[in-house]
Amino acid sequence: MFFWQKFFKSTSMFNRYENINALSSLEDAILVKHLESNGEVLNIYLTTKKNINLNELEQLCDSVGWVRRPLKKVKAAIDHSFLTICLFYNNDKCQKLIGFARATSDTVFNATIWDVVIHPDFQGKGLGKILMDNVILQLRCADISTITLFADPQVVSFYRNLGFITDPDGVKGMFWYPR
Amino acid sequence: MFFWQKFFKSTSMFNRYENINALSSLEDAILVKHLESNGEVLNIYLTTKKNINLNELEQLCDSVGWVRRPLKKVKAAIDHSFLTICLFYNNDKCQKLIGFARATSDTVFNATIWDVVIHPDFQGKGLGKILMDNVILQLRCADISTITLFADPQVVSFYRNLGFITDPDGVKGMFWYPR
Repeated sequence: MFFWQKFFKSTSMFNRYENINALSSLEDAILVKHLESNGEVLNIYLTTKKNINLNELEQLCDSVGWVRRPLKKVKAAIDHSFLTICLFYNNDKCQKLIGFARATSDTVFNATIWDVVIHPDFQGKGLGKILMDNVILQLRCADISTITLFADPQVVSFYRNLGFITDPDGVKGMFWYPR
Repeated sequence: MFFWQKFFKSTSMFNRYENINALSSLEDAILVKHLESNGEVLNIYLTTKKNINLNELEQLCDSVGWVRRPLKKVKAAIDHSFLTICLFYNNDKCQKLIGFARATSDTVFNATIWDVVIHPDFQGKGLGKILMDNVILQLRCADISTITLFADPQVVSFYRNLGFITDPDGVKGMFWYPR
């Protein structure tokens, strides 16, 4: 820790400094939800910026029990995704990543959405819908007409409620895995 | 047409010139099939190079009745695809695109295959399998483990024979279309 950080930490100014730092990162974000719970207020923000803290993303994926993936590969996947969306909360104490989704695309015709996740503590509050509505909005803004995803059985109804259709005209999603 | 082209066209050398042109483009291609039909010999080549003649690709897509798409967008889709594969034949007279497939990808985890097409005159000769086996090979070489596609009902069995699985563990392919 550098001297000036030590100095700030030893004074009330440090808290203000931390807060300014958090607020400055909100410049690229939009407020999407105001949550009040047990007297605590949390503002939820959304950003499409790709400067994602990979350790925070790993913690978020851990929270829903996903298998860990090498951070180097995660970074490459993010870099080569057409779109990433992060949801995070911000209060006067800290900032935390609580939602994520990304999409690969040819940039004009088709997109496929991957890695949709909301932290368990924040599920059931409408944030998954906000996240996905925004994914669709961004892809539609890019004039991409075919938006696809592969849904686990327990989330098929969630995506149906957002307007996604399973097997339209008998079109089947198919997977090939290494043997 | 320039003078030297006129000159060559007026002599037997022009055919040789055309042939040299065709052969030079084979440098980046591999021979994948030798077809003999009605005394005519056709060598089928495969390439992953992206310098695709868009008019030829449009003709190929026309041949299977696909809706036409703006060439500018087709070019963007190709440029932003992780992988494109072209099949073409070459004999001493000319060269013609007869097969195509492409894949979008995050370059590390997932890929989705789009626009798989074989010219109707060349269907039923094993070229679809050669094309798709090579798509899988290229993606596996890049260490991509989840290879996906969306199959029309009439080609589901074709992809099954290549090792693709529909709805593994109840995972459903889903589509969102503009309303």
